Amino acid sequence: MNLLNDMTADNDRLGEFDVIRDIFSPLSEKAPGAFGLTDDAAVMSLAAGSELVVTKDAMVAGVHFLEGDEPEHIAKKLLRTNLSDIAAMGAKPLSYLLATAWPKSCDVAWIRRFAKGLAEDQKIYNVSLLGGDTVSTSGPLTLSLTLLGAVESGKCLRRNGAKEGDLLCVSGSIGDAALGLKVALQELEVSDNNHNQFLLNRYFVPRPRVLLGPALIGVASSCLDISDGLLADVGHICRNSNLGAVIEQSKIPLSAAVQEVLLKTPDLMEKVLSGGDDYELAFTVPKDRYGQVMRKAESLDVPISVIGKMVTRLGVSLIDDDGAEIPIPSMGWTHF
Amino acid sequence: MNLLNDMTADNDRLGEFDVIRDIFSPLSEKAPGAFGLTDDAAVMSLAAGSELVVTKDAMVAGVHFLEGDEPEHIAKKLLRTNLSDIAAMGAKPLSYLLATAWPKSCDVAWIRRFAKGLAEDQKIYNVSLLGGDTVSTSGPLTLSLTLLGAVESGKCLRRNGAKEGDLLCVSGSIGDAALGLKVALQELEVSDNNHNQFLLNRYFVPRPRVLLGPALIGVASSCLDISDGLLADVGHICRNSNLGAVIEQSKIPLSAAVQEVLLKTPDLMEKVLSGGDDYELAFTVPKDRYGQVMRKAESLDVPISVIGKMVTRLGVSLIDDDGAEIPIPSMGWTHF
Repeated sequence: MNLLNDMTADNDRLGEFDVIRDIFSPLSEKAPGAFGLTDDAAVMSLAAGSELVVTKDAMVAGVHFLEGDEPEHIAKKLLRTNLSDIAAMGAKPLSYLLATAWPKSCDVAWIRRFAKGLAEDQKIYNVSLLGGDTVSTSGPLTLSLTLLGAVESGKCLRRNGAKEGDLLCVSGSIGDAALGLKVALQELEVSDNNHNQFLLNRYFVPRPRVLLGPALIGVASSCLDISDGLLADVGHICRNSNLGAVIEQSKIPLSAAVQEVLLKTPDLMEKVLSGGDDYELAFTVPKDRYGQVMRKAESLDVPISVIGKMVTRLGVSLIDDDGAEIPIPSMGWTHF
Repeated sequence: MNLLNDMTADNDRLGEFDVIRDIFSPLSEKAPGAFGLTDDAAVMSLAAGSELVVTKDAMVAGVHFLEGDEPEHIAKKLLRTNLSDIAAMGAKPLSYLLATAWPKSCDVAWIRRFAKGLAEDQKIYNVSLLGGDTVSTSGPLTLSLTLLGAVESGKCLRRNGAKEGDLLCVSGSIGDAALGLKVALQELEVSDNNHNQFLLNRYFVPRPRVLLGPALIGVASSCLDISDGLLADVGHICRNSNLGAVIEQSKIPLSAAVQEVLLKTPDLMEKVLSGGDDYELAFTVPKDRYGQVMRKAESLDVPISVIGKMVTRLGVSLIDDDGAEIPIPSMGWTHF
């Protein structure tokens, strides 16, 4: 029961929820324990020797995405940010629950496109809808996704395992999404059309490192995904491991698109360092296991860069090629 | 990263989220796999021979609760509605994830009271916070809770197992919450002060049947919790079991408070039948197992009533003491 559709009030909306259930139930077809979204709860089994790994992210229109963003993009970003969290723990994703608070502005056509985005990503990442809830809201579109995965018992990657002297590594390239957001907000113009599209894609449709994460189990000493920004997230590893990190700025992997932008506007380096949403993995590795990491990453075709190392002096510091410290923008520090 | 606190914009709010994390992390103390809410995801193990049972409900201010409701009540209702879903599957609750989209109107004092409500219920129901997400919203307070539980593999209660001739039963009393909402909205006056408070309590702080649900495993043929209203929810059992149900109106268990209200305003029987939020269990039992159900319910001190039986003629019908059909208000039917 809810106050808005208190029986007589809002039967249209109730009928609409049936339509929404019809739109989403095909997404649960490959999860037998979803029971076609008919029951009070869903059931999932775990393989013997596995533990459940679970994460839950929320996204609000106007805060985490723009009102006018494509529904398919919003759906994919929601799922992929959670996939990235599961990958950062070294776990494999299995299925997810979705809670949606729809404003009247999201009509059935919009919701169908949202479900289409989920369906496309379910195929790519081999996950299924397991359950959830659909409600209405007078406020902005609000989404919450709970992703369930599994990892070998006792083996998950944590943020707190880094040791002094460990190499600090990142996958892929850094800063693309932060500059992509600036492009989307029309705060940044990128003349090369391919670069422009690349940055937008990196912002709208991040690529979670779902294979790299599980491959790092038993090799990496700590791991997380870069969602708050490189400096902030490395700060999380430092704080949880009770260590510091020294990052060599020139070692931070930058895409051709980011390099082009920085040539014209060097001040945007600050955005590259402190912007978020890249959903790359940052992790630490004991030196003697770095060869193993490289081989695993190569076999998965994931680029890996060593950007620094873990030290006993607390905090994150950034150095130039001569080893001189580069001041870190203070606003980044509220995070760590 | 989010658009509202895009680095320079909203550091106060970021700092506030740290406070919120501090408020909620004590709730995770008894869940070692929550890692103190520090990591990207949480870990939980299941006992051998168990399956995971999972449910996720969303609540929006102004839709599922009133803006001015007590924060402790809102927290408890959120947790208890999910506990009720898990109980309806015959499962036992273990831990939960919470996503909150806070409007600026919810200050830290308000959030502390919300967390206090959760802490009180965690003790009663022996569950822990495992993880979640905290975001801000320009809209109404929006909450989503994912509750994880466990059930012996292959044994969970479903909606689709009722058989012709099975007895239709409910726990507790029906209609209290629907009339409690009317009292809260000042649409109904109840002269007896105890009755007044009883109805309000039943609306604001439902009592999920967490012990009865698991006790019905192997005995009940189908089960769900009454959240949409008695007629609608019995309709769910019928539709999923491809049967119908005949309910004897005089057998529906009514509290003294509801009886008092109906004496004055008989028309409110419609609300009792079709209002929701009671969070009692409705279930079906083969006749030869009814004795077992009664003994289990007595040992748990949960009142149980037989209100009708399952029949082959589809749909839900209501009969009087002479067996004559009572018309069912049409608005209820959009649900089933």
